[in-house]
Amino acid sequence: MDIEATFLFIIEVVGTIAFAISGIRLAAYKNFDLFGAYTIGLVTATGGGTLRDVMLNLPVFWLCTPVYLAVTALSLLIVVIFRKMLVSHNRLLFTFDAIGLALFVVIGIQKTLAAGYPMWAAIVMGTITGSFGGVIRDILINEEPLFFRKDIYSTACVAGGLVYWLISIGGGSVMLQQSLCAATVILLRVCALKFNWALPVITYDIRKIPKQ
Amino acid sequence: MDIEATFLFIIEVVGTIAFAISGIRLAAYKNFDLFGAYTIGLVTATGGGTLRDVMLNLPVFWLCTPVYLAVTALSLLIVVIFRKMLVSHNRLLFTFDAIGLALFVVIGIQKTLAAGYPMWAAIVMGTITGSFGGVIRDILINEEPLFFRKDIYSTACVAGGLVYWLISIGGGSVMLQQSLCAATVILLRVCALKFNWALPVITYDIRKIPKQ
Amino acid sequence: MDIEATFLFIIEVVGTIAFAISGIRLAAYKNFDLFGAYTIGLVTATGGGTLRDVMLNLPVFWLCTPVYLAVTALSLLIVVIFRKMLVSHNRLLFTFDAIGLALFVVIGIQKTLAAGYPMWAAIVMGTITGSFGGVIRDILINEEPLFFRKDIYSTACVAGGLVYWLISIGGGSVMLQQSLCAATVILLRVCALKFNWALPVITYDIRKIPKQ
Repeated sequence: MDIEATFLFIIEVVGTIAFAISGIRLAAYKNFDLFGAYTIGLVTATGGGTLRDVMLNLPVFWLCTPVYLAVTALSLLIVVIFRKMLVSHNRLLFTFDAIGLALFVVIGIQKTLAAGYPMWAAIVMGTITGSFGGVIRDILINEEPLFFRKDIYSTACVAGGLVYWLISIGGGSVMLQQSLCAATVILLRVCALKFNWALPVITYDIRKIPKQ
Repeated sequence: MDIEATFLFIIEVVGTIAFAISGIRLAAYKNFDLFGAYTIGLVTATGGGTLRDVMLNLPVFWLCTPVYLAVTALSLLIVVIFRKMLVSHNRLLFTFDAIGLALFVVIGIQKTLAAGYPMWAAIVMGTITGSFGGVIRDILINEEPLFFRKDIYSTACVAGGLVYWLISIGGGSVMLQQSLCAATVILLRVCALKFNWALPVITYDIRKIPKQ
Repeated sequence: MDIEATFLFIIEVVGTIAFAISGIRLAAYKNFDLFGAYTIGLVTATGGGTLRDVMLNLPVFWLCTPVYLAVTALSLLIVVIFRKMLVSHNRLLFTFDAIGLALFVVIGIQKTLAAGYPMWAAIVMGTITGSFGGVIRDILINEEPLFFRKDIYSTACVAGGLVYWLISIGGGSVMLQQSLCAATVILLRVCALKFNWALPVITYDIRKIPKQ
């Protein structure tokens, strides 16, 4: 099981770097200073997990080891040094991001189940772990969260969670649950990008919305 | 006492639906996708209580039962199916919203007192329970929170809390405290709408605010 | 040690007033109503410490005593009565703000260390205590947080934290650690204002940022 933990940790670091870079790039796009960019990177990478840990009343994961701060610093360095290269490697970044998302969902589900919560709460927490870092990032840079109107993103997290659930009902091993959950998330992200998949939009024919 | 609990639960569900619908309508107005609209509805209905539970270090209420997720799904269904009808029933929605607000305040006060906090903290938490779901909703859709510049809303929550306090000092029963607190909130909301009541605005004659 | 505690408490109140006033001024600038202005003042003064306490799983400090609510009310009164005078005393407000910031950093570091966390986590928490009240304020009034692109502010918090660390490594007393940490923060704030110090900005030559 130690090998699995090491494996998960490595992929978690990869995911953290991908998320941090995505945040730092947006910060650079908005001409933030280095400290601001670092903060945005950190929040993008850790915000979802922080919200999860606070709501589950668990110790906040990135306060238990300095690894996440260091990995974010590394990501900042990568953006500063390789920014020209990064611009033409959107596909690579997308792949990292999809892998990171998949693993964040798996980790969110596992931690929630380990804390004794039922499966439906774990799926919600997996989705929050995967997507709320980006939401908090968008709030901080004062953009409307993409979360709410773009291609399949959180929906991929929920779908991954449902696959996790189905396989656990079917009696599959934890390893199988994790792998197929992650595969579902990645597959849906790739398809969403390739085929422009999106959820239907909700519309509302209003003349005047009453104040709150 | 079981009848009271059932009664409170039913009204809480009504309030949750009203709050979720108010969020989903705004999301629809902004053309969010279905998942985004669902999330906004959930956050509007549960955000205040979540903030309260996290700050009081209590288990987050909507993670203890799937009822709130289901009720939000129901609200989404209502908006999708009945949106044309809803447009012309603003008054009905306002009534639901006022009842929901009143009950959220009562629940916030009760939970805070039950956790051993003093009355002033309970009034703050009642107000947060009632109004911060809407604040978080406005942050997520990147609107300036209405909270800060509109008719009596949070003020109604505080007033309800003060009535709760006065009656507890006067030796009234918990049932009486709850009922008059809720009645105060509803009455103030109705009056605010009817007579355009609002708090005075604060102004500040500045040439240049120093960059804090 | 009692004298030290009293001393810290007095300066904390001064810092709270300075932070609350900075929030209330911005609220006034945006024509919020009195309740909205009060809320913004409270959030500016207590938001950073609240985030710290929630993430460290400590009791939220301003729910332990009504002092912070009262001090914020006093700040609102000050702004309402003296607003004309305040406009021409930006320097005084800046001084208060710098002192408040310095002490918030010291308090954040101390509380984190006392909760058993390592020094690097304490520095992060000191910085959050000092600067996230302003970030949350900017989110609530729907402005892009100044945090991310202005003169040395959070950087001053981090520098103060590093000084705290160095002196603790060097075997200095807690009193010395606190004093030099606070002095560093204040000095850097004053220099940043006087000499227009700022961190380098990060730029990113993009044609199109991929929708994360």
